Amino acid sequence: MAAEMAEQPDVLGRLVARLPELGEAVRAALPTPLLGSTLIARGSSDNAAVFGRYLYEPASGRPAGLAAPSLVTRYGARTDYSGYLVTALSQSGRTPEIVTAVRAAREQGARIVAITNEADSLLAAEADVLVATDAGTEIAVPATKTVTAQLLAVVGIALALGPLPPTVADLADLAELPDAVSRVLADAEACERLAADWAHHDRLVVAGRGLGGAVALEGALKIRETSGVFAEGISVADLLHGPIAALGARVPVLLIDLGGPTAPDIAALRERLVADGIPHATVAPELGGLRTEAARAIATTVHLQNLARTFALRRGANPDAPAGLAKVTPTT
Amino acid sequence: MAAEMAEQPDVLGRLVARLPELGEAVRAALPTPLLGSTLIARGSSDNAAVFGRYLYEPASGRPAGLAAPSLVTRYGARTDYSGYLVTALSQSGRTPEIVTAVRAAREQGARIVAITNEADSLLAAEADVLVATDAGTEIAVPATKTVTAQLLAVVGIALALGPLPPTVADLADLAELPDAVSRVLADAEACERLAADWAHHDRLVVAGRGLGGAVALEGALKIRETSGVFAEGISVADLLHGPIAALGARVPVLLIDLGGPTAPDIAALRERLVADGIPHATVAPELGGLRTEAARAIATTVHLQNLARTFALRRGANPDAPAGLAKVTPTT
Repeated sequence: MAAEMAEQPDVLGRLVARLPELGEAVRAALPTPLLGSTLIARGSSDNAAVFGRYLYEPASGRPAGLAAPSLVTRYGARTDYSGYLVTALSQSGRTPEIVTAVRAAREQGARIVAITNEADSLLAAEADVLVATDAGTEIAVPATKTVTAQLLAVVGIALALGPLPPTVADLADLAELPDAVSRVLADAEACERLAADWAHHDRLVVAGRGLGGAVALEGALKIRETSGVFAEGISVADLLHGPIAALGARVPVLLIDLGGPTAPDIAALRERLVADGIPHATVAPELGGLRTEAARAIATTVHLQNLARTFALRRGANPDAPAGLAKVTPTT
Repeated sequence: MAAEMAEQPDVLGRLVARLPELGEAVRAALPTPLLGSTLIARGSSDNAAVFGRYLYEPASGRPAGLAAPSLVTRYGARTDYSGYLVTALSQSGRTPEIVTAVRAAREQGARIVAITNEADSLLAAEADVLVATDAGTEIAVPATKTVTAQLLAVVGIALALGPLPPTVADLADLAELPDAVSRVLADAEACERLAADWAHHDRLVVAGRGLGGAVALEGALKIRETSGVFAEGISVADLLHGPIAALGARVPVLLIDLGGPTAPDIAALRERLVADGIPHATVAPELGGLRTEAARAIATTVHLQNLARTFALRRGANPDAPAGLAKVTPTT
């Protein structure tokens, strides 16, 4: 896991360089007019899909959402996807339900973008545009370099759909990402400190909003897979609508603050946690001047990988091969 | 909470009787052609929205998804909703972010259906079609009768969008729901038995798939709000993609089995839990011959309310007024 995490500056650097050409390919494949977009994924890839959903909708100016693969694989739905862009994300490109759902969408008129680390996979074969993350083989069960490459890919695709606010994403800031990720990887101290304080907890909540909400989901999944801590990622707004009642002094909350327009939400939740006496910490890696929320989100995801691994080591777990998980989960 | 739960046969019976006329109103308001549909909600209403998403898509034959209100309220997105049906769900009709997101969608061309218990609310005023759940005032913080009314309303709206498989939903089977819910309410024994075995656990996973996945989300939220048990609702497929590694002998899993096409998934998960030595139980209330998965889902939701309340009482919690929660959460 550590070795694959360390490859991220290179992987991201190679992909950043290809984004302009990938953007051209996406634009050439778009339906006219574009009526909506859908993302399909599971596991860590699903967190990248949630991230993409927040970018595709404002960039394209049309609704974006996540697919429910079971509608195809279990309920036999034949949804008309004409006019839609469908983006499928799968590290292996061979999760059966993802391949089945994408094939159905394609047969029903969707244009397909496939983001996968396996350029000769079944999923890749269904694509109008193949975005190969080209991250090299990933052996550790917790996905790291393939996830940040997926996150970067969806930012690139979103920028091809239309303009995003300059505080959210632009290609110039993404070019700064490899160096920023190198600095995040080198900064183990904050992770060690938090793990020393918190790694004995069996539960943890990771909360964010907007793009930071997707980061929270992925950070929590990584902590769970890697360390066995029962971490839950949740939107700040959803947390306030019920689950906050089940916290209390024994369940610490990790706050994801990317700056940007949801920063006041994070600050307000922090005040509430202080008032309620709930332990909390804010994830604040040194991001070296990254201007955009999307780039900060990717670098923060790397910091959370570091944190997950540090938690695992401190708890005596093996982060490379967590009990009970296989690298490819063949859900159908 | 118990008193409001007991009103559900009446509330559902009144709403069932109005479904044909509500269906006419929805059909009259639909854009032509319908390009997609979006549901907007938070908290328990969000679980009803997830449920609706599984019904709208196959009924309408067009993609359905959930909105991210923060795109409007935080990122200022101006998404073009022309050709879309937007369904907003809010018990109070006054959660600020829901009202703001609906108003923006309306201004951008959406046709709006509002499902609310407050017919003179701000949300109701934005609607092309108002579906008043007419459940009477709900005082207990955990929403019960307004949630099952929302679930029934989305089934009715879905049936207005187009046909559903006869195993999924039809009006005749929904007419049997009030009696089935009466029987579920009267059957406290299974809840008492499970609470005796499990109420000392601090964590719990509730797992389902498809329509049963939405029931799992709502059941888990209700258990959390009511009893303080850290219950997590999750899709069976998502559970297998990572979180299952963080279970173990101390975190029991409650399986939601509605029959229907996802029943083999539940059976397969049960086998895995047996093999891994993870404690589990299947929610199986007496449903008195309900034929359709949608009706079974609503009746099972009532059973889970009963279970949540029984857990709370056994843990010495007050189910009517959980610590840390207000009836209306004013997220913006």
